[in-house]
Amino acid sequence: MALDLNDYIATYNDFPEKGIVFRDISPLLEDGDAYKQATDEIVQYARDKKVDMIVGPEARGFIVGCPVAYDLGIGFAPARKKGKLPGKTVKASYGLEYGKSSLYLHEGAIKPGQRVLVTDDLLATGGTIGATIELVEDLGGIVVGTAFLIELEELHGRDNIKGYDILSLLKY
Amino acid sequence: MALDLNDYIATYNDFPEKGIVFRDISPLLEDGDAYKQATDEIVQYARDKKVDMIVGPEARGFIVGCPVAYDLGIGFAPARKKGKLPGKTVKASYGLEYGKSSLYLHEGAIKPGQRVLVTDDLLATGGTIGATIELVEDLGGIVVGTAFLIELEELHGRDNIKGYDILSLLKY
Repeated sequence: MALDLNDYIATYNDFPEKGIVFRDISPLLEDGDAYKQATDEIVQYARDKKVDMIVGPEARGFIVGCPVAYDLGIGFAPARKKGKLPGKTVKASYGLEYGKSSLYLHEGAIKPGQRVLVTDDLLATGGTIGATIELVEDLGGIVVGTAFLIELEELHGRDNIKGYDILSLLKY
Repeated sequence: MALDLNDYIATYNDFPEKGIVFRDISPLLEDGDAYKQATDEIVQYARDKKVDMIVGPEARGFIVGCPVAYDLGIGFAPARKKGKLPGKTVKASYGLEYGKSSLYLHEGAIKPGQRVLVTDDLLATGGTIGATIELVEDLGGIVVGTAFLIELEELHGRDNIKGYDILSLLKY
């Protein structure tokens, strides 16, 4: 029987800053059945979308995307913060829910025309995912879907990635 | 036929600092067959060790450990840097190959007596992995193995985690 994944999300008020309600995926990850069920849903979504490659932003995007890539036998490319990737990279800047940052992707990560799924734990304002999409498209990839464990609907992240297909397993 | 995973490691001199020879796992991750083959080896190792839980340090430890946890249907707990984990945590400090830092683990991540595999991309001086082992043991977990894509033998990281079993897929 399917688990109710809501039971595996912890809520913290005023983290990491006052006024932020933080949805913590730790209990979900720490439970093998819950992590498997959540990932299985994203694997099925990726299969339906005929995905060639997964890209996830540092660091929780790795936790969501890597098992999907492994299960499908396709590659994973991490979108990383400044100073983390050697060699030639492309760069995209964005405003976070709290703060401002840039993300980088290895130039060889995506071949033009590849069908890419972008993964992260959380769709909040959509800044991080928007930047990740920009990086993929900069390299000629086609973003055929985006997948999240959680969507914070009141932050309207969907408006920031209009026209892209979205799978979010849990909504708050 | 098995791939030679050495063919999927890029080498950069003087990154991230002068004098450092950086072994880059990006080509391995970006190739679905190579990433699968590497992960399969770690899955088999984890199965042999009867692992209950995987713990990996931020951020490349997630890339190595998460697919293993998913495949075995067990949990994954991220060891994270300061300010990333809400709630109660345990802390361990360590010296890096370049710099100094602390890692944190969610207090509920490990149940006493659980058999834990610690994963990271790289065994260098062993500082990061030593701190991660300390966190696991602080919560009563038993570290039954450690797994890495790459071991930099000349940095003698093994000496920092004496008595722990080590799987390293590639040695330089």
